Amino acid sequence: MEQSMTIGRGREKALAPYFRPLIRNAWYCAAWATEVGETMLARRILDIPLVLYRAETGEPVALLDVCPHKLAPMHLGRRIGDNLMCGYHGLQFDKGGACVHNPQGNGVIPPHARLRSFPLVERYGTVWIWMGDRALADPATIPNFGHIDDPKRKTVTGGHHVASNYMMMVENLMDLGHVLYLHGQTAGTDGLVLSDNKVGTNDNSVFDHRLYSDIPPPGIFAKYAHPDWKSSDFWTDITWQAPSVIRNHTGVSPAGEARQASSVDLFGSHFLTPETQNTTHYFYCHSRNFLTNDSSVDEFFCNWQRTALKAEDSRVAEAIARLVPEADDLDVQMVFLSTDRSGVRVNRILDEMAHAEQ
Amino acid sequence: MEQSMTIGRGREKALAPYFRPLIRNAWYCAAWATEVGETMLARRILDIPLVLYRAETGEPVALLDVCPHKLAPMHLGRRIGDNLMCGYHGLQFDKGGACVHNPQGNGVIPPHARLRSFPLVERYGTVWIWMGDRALADPATIPNFGHIDDPKRKTVTGGHHVASNYMMMVENLMDLGHVLYLHGQTAGTDGLVLSDNKVGTNDNSVFDHRLYSDIPPPGIFAKYAHPDWKSSDFWTDITWQAPSVIRNHTGVSPAGEARQASSVDLFGSHFLTPETQNTTHYFYCHSRNFLTNDSSVDEFFCNWQRTALKAEDSRVAEAIARLVPEADDLDVQMVFLSTDRSGVRVNRILDEMAHAEQ
Amino acid sequence: MEQSMTIGRGREKALAPYFRPLIRNAWYCAAWATEVGETMLARRILDIPLVLYRAETGEPVALLDVCPHKLAPMHLGRRIGDNLMCGYHGLQFDKGGACVHNPQGNGVIPPHARLRSFPLVERYGTVWIWMGDRALADPATIPNFGHIDDPKRKTVTGGHHVASNYMMMVENLMDLGHVLYLHGQTAGTDGLVLSDNKVGTNDNSVFDHRLYSDIPPPGIFAKYAHPDWKSSDFWTDITWQAPSVIRNHTGVSPAGEARQASSVDLFGSHFLTPETQNTTHYFYCHSRNFLTNDSSVDEFFCNWQRTALKAEDSRVAEAIARLVPEADDLDVQMVFLSTDRSGVRVNRILDEMAHAEQ
Repeated sequence: MEQSMTIGRGREKALAPYFRPLIRNAWYCAAWATEVGETMLARRILDIPLVLYRAETGEPVALLDVCPHKLAPMHLGRRIGDNLMCGYHGLQFDKGGACVHNPQGNGVIPPHARLRSFPLVERYGTVWIWMGDRALADPATIPNFGHIDDPKRKTVTGGHHVASNYMMMVENLMDLGHVLYLHGQTAGTDGLVLSDNKVGTNDNSVFDHRLYSDIPPPGIFAKYAHPDWKSSDFWTDITWQAPSVIRNHTGVSPAGEARQASSVDLFGSHFLTPETQNTTHYFYCHSRNFLTNDSSVDEFFCNWQRTALKAEDSRVAEAIARLVPEADDLDVQMVFLSTDRSGVRVNRILDEMAHAEQ
Repeated sequence: MEQSMTIGRGREKALAPYFRPLIRNAWYCAAWATEVGETMLARRILDIPLVLYRAETGEPVALLDVCPHKLAPMHLGRRIGDNLMCGYHGLQFDKGGACVHNPQGNGVIPPHARLRSFPLVERYGTVWIWMGDRALADPATIPNFGHIDDPKRKTVTGGHHVASNYMMMVENLMDLGHVLYLHGQTAGTDGLVLSDNKVGTNDNSVFDHRLYSDIPPPGIFAKYAHPDWKSSDFWTDITWQAPSVIRNHTGVSPAGEARQASSVDLFGSHFLTPETQNTTHYFYCHSRNFLTNDSSVDEFFCNWQRTALKAEDSRVAEAIARLVPEADDLDVQMVFLSTDRSGVRVNRILDEMAHAEQ
Repeated sequence: MEQSMTIGRGREKALAPYFRPLIRNAWYCAAWATEVGETMLARRILDIPLVLYRAETGEPVALLDVCPHKLAPMHLGRRIGDNLMCGYHGLQFDKGGACVHNPQGNGVIPPHARLRSFPLVERYGTVWIWMGDRALADPATIPNFGHIDDPKRKTVTGGHHVASNYMMMVENLMDLGHVLYLHGQTAGTDGLVLSDNKVGTNDNSVFDHRLYSDIPPPGIFAKYAHPDWKSSDFWTDITWQAPSVIRNHTGVSPAGEARQASSVDLFGSHFLTPETQNTTHYFYCHSRNFLTNDSSVDEFFCNWQRTALKAEDSRVAEAIARLVPEADDLDVQMVFLSTDRSGVRVNRILDEMAHAEQ
């Protein structure tokens, strides 16, 4: 059973996560796979301007979006096959970032002319990028989100830009205590009584597992659960993996029975990729195992994502982000609630990672 | 008789008022009474974000608009009776700012959880706020603006936001020398000859009383003065009260006679409330004792306020505010004119008040 | 023959021109002569806010746009004959900047009350301003752009505001290597083979002369060259004069013959006037000696200026300006190309001028 910690914690500690240096040695979701194609996509990640495109082999490519000659953005140029040509003076770089053509003067290629390139891996309909030390980029460490492209599921994707540090959104997602209040209109989870709750840490992962036993199927499950279930067990298993991907596995089973093939369940996938210290690319999707051919359910999730994740969650995150720089002047004595427990575990791990990178 | 002071004063001294720390121990106009109701009103005063509302008893309430849990703005939540509930995690605070409900975990209320509250007094159709030390907040020191809700008068209100320090507007209002130039089109005060002028200081108040004897009723009074007056005495009595409220009592009497019940007069009330160091809430109204049932006169004042106070005065104040940070780089050698004399007195008092508060 | 320098140069050196203090003792183009008239024109040059107007004699006037009383912008006031009256309190200044009337109080003019005035010279349809030490302002040093108002030519003018330091545009104009890439669609100079190229320095001027012999008239000249020319010599003579005016004399002659009266030629005039350290007023025009009465050719140049100079050149300059502050964080190892050679000479001169002014 959760306990409310009644000891106020320092404002400095409460706000430190928003000022913590961004973690560099990690896989981040850079884009949906469908965003990366023939046309160059300009996107800033960890405050580095990138240009993304897909080589003729289909392989996705990420290069620094800055020509080393005059700093012109590469995405203002054009592709010559798999090479990128700077639109200003015609320097060409191959997909590995090496300068391969200098049309100026005698054509000698300046030895240091190159674009930094970044490892990319396409997986689960998304493209993952490694912004740190190349030598440490092991694709085996990309978190498993196989449910996204599981052919037995239907996935509805979405995303938006958030004007806050990514941690405002990570803390939001790890904290289920806000659902009843911020999403009271949309989540429909009134009257839930928790029967079991486990919060824990596994290496660079934090989980929060909740079970509500013997209740009518709640919220969106009410519509889609098997009609012969009078009562159900409802679970919400949230798993954060460092630094900023979150899986929310939720579903219902017949009351008293174990989770089973017939369970109605849903994977929420949330990728918070820092654009800068104070802005975030938020990619998300929901992968369901029920009514997979019903487009009205697609539409339901599409609307729900827009309402709950953008209009509700991100609106609060952005409002908080505007107030954070003032907290010292306003001398707010901040308090800690039990719902922050998972977030505390998350921050402990990220503090260690950030410390190790410095 | 006024004297033009021909001694240039230092730029540093001339610009210091705009950088002076805001006075905290003072009553400020926070809102028109009609703005404060059931719905929460978010307003920043002295750089503190506030939420204002009216309790079920009718009493106005001002609380810090920042939840001490995660810094979410309280105005994004909702009222539960007289309590405010944070829209993020459901913490509830009563109208005194005490946290009275924590729906998270075991429900224990963190001992330091509270919203700072601010004394409010409703008077003259306006709501006055004390942003400083509560112990010093004496409602008896709220300046008298009883003419605003005097049933024998008709008051036309208005207001706008000014992108300048409040002192640009205070100096503007205390300095009648600008009227002929900035409001030449609207004030209609050509050809006035001053017959008497007194400038003085009373405690935390500065006055500038002017009399123009034996002239045709000027400007707006020409239309509304008694038709059998061939000549009139016209007076303008400006009174500033620290830190930023100004009453402009102006009117006409039959020439040579004392002010009397039959005088046609007008109280201009001007409340300059700092939003931040560099932005201002400007509330104003004009309370006349003539043609009180004539809505075309209401409209005249409404238009006049919009033209003279916003399009003319505040436009210049904002233009000056943009140039102030550059004055040193431009090396402007500033000059002092006789019309600044009242402003000098005002600044002397505010300097002392600010010094006492540091 | 050009040589590509393959030695990378330091980022610090490459970016220094954009941070170099602006040159003050120099003539800058302040405005087209037609912009300066009865109405006051507010314009910031070298980060100094100016008001420009034309006195009744026709002489152009430039004064500081800041009243020394309260810092109100003078351009919000109005003209009283050749004097400017501040719109706030009525101080009047003559066209030399002296305060000549104080309507406040006893009317004594404060001895230091004045507006700084700036030498202006009207020449070639443009107005030139000297922002530095008046004693050094010698109109004989205004660069010769007599082709602009040469009655045998037709000139098409244009201009726009650039959100970059002026040097991004100066380097752009001095570097012909970008034409084929950035203006590939508009310049039509494919297949040019350089037969002669001279880059040199004369005092405070840098030139880059190029000759392409025995080719079909290129680009815009193809349309307008004499139809009986089977082949032509095409030249491009660029001349920069410190700090930021550039003349681009380009044209075609019958192949093998010297330049002659029958040559079809064109003077491009480019005046880059710093508004601030990071923004620029860009004035330009093209003066042709062919089809001077054909308005469709006027329209061609008008469109071409908008496309090549604004949509292409300035778009890149502005994109670079946004990346320059990040170059250190991104750790870009910048490279130097042969096309930068003229720019290096320009920067060497400007470094010396800036050093001499400090």
